[in-house]
Amino acid sequence: MTNKTELVFPKGDKITNNNFTGTAWLQMLVNNDSTYNTSIGNVTFEPGARTNWHKHPGGQILLVTDGMGYYQEKGKPAQLIRKGDIVKIPPDAEHWHGAAPNNGLTHIAISPNTDKGSVVWLQPVTDEEYNQPTR
Amino acid sequence: MTNKTELVFPKGDKITNNNFTGTAWLQMLVNNDSTYNTSIGNVTFEPGARTNWHKHPGGQILLVTDGMGYYQEKGKPAQLIRKGDIVKIPPDAEHWHGAAPNNGLTHIAISPNTDKGSVVWLQPVTDEEYNQPTR
Repeated sequence: MTNKTELVFPKGDKITNNNFTGTAWLQMLVNNDSTYNTSIGNVTFEPGARTNWHKHPGGQILLVTDGMGYYQEKGKPAQLIRKGDIVKIPPDAEHWHGAAPNNGLTHIAISPNTDKGSVVWLQPVTDEEYNQPTR
Repeated sequence: MTNKTELVFPKGDKITNNNFTGTAWLQMLVNNDSTYNTSIGNVTFEPGARTNWHKHPGGQILLVTDGMGYYQEKGKPAQLIRKGDIVKIPPDAEHWHGAAPNNGLTHIAISPNTDKGSVVWLQPVTDEEYNQPTR
C-alpha cells in the first residue's frame, strides 16, 4: 500500500457539514439530474474519518480506488475494504463507511435511482462504534 | 502520461465479440440487476481499438482512468478524452469511444437506468471514420 498513488480524480473540497466525523474531502464527478438519475462523487477520508450513519433510497455502489477502511451495515459486523473492492449498499440499508484508524480511504460513490429519493443522514458513528471493528 | 500506472481494477478478459474493432478488455465490476438498475464495467482499449457505433436507452457515463482516446456522437466532431475526464452520453445518442492510435485508454463505464433497455450495437467504426478525428 502506498500513499503516493497518482490522483486520477481531484480530491475536491473539505467537507464542512455535520454528516461526517473527522476530515473528509468531496469532488463531485456527476451531479444528479433526471436524465442519468445518478450522482457520482469522489470521496477521500483521512485516517479515522467516517460518514455518519445514513441510507440511500436507491442504493449506492462504492468503487474503492485507494487506501483502506471499513463499511458497516447496522446490525452486521464491519467489513474491511481496500483498493479494488466494490461495495453494493442495498436501498434503505442503514450504514456507514470511512477510513481505517491509521490509513486513509478513497472511493468513488455512485448513487443510482435518485428518483427514489436522496440520501437520508442519521446520527454520527460514535468512537465506541468506530473503535469496535477497527481496533 | 505514463503507461505504468498501477491497476486499481483488473483488466479482465479480452473481448471476443464483434462489437469492437481491435483489442479491448473487459472486467465487469457490477452486473446489472433490478435493485441497482445499473451495470459497471472496466474497459481497456489497446491503441487503435474502439467500440462499434452503439447507443444506450438509459444513457452512459464514462470515468476515464488512464490513457487517451476519443468519444464521438454521430454528426458531431470527435472529442479527445484523457485520464480524469468524465463523459456523459445521452440516452439513445449514437456514439463510439476508444483509444487513440498510439495510446491506450482505460475507462469505467457506468450504465444507469438499465430498466429502459440494454445497449444497442450498430455498425463498426470504419478506418475512415476513425482516422478522420485521430490523424
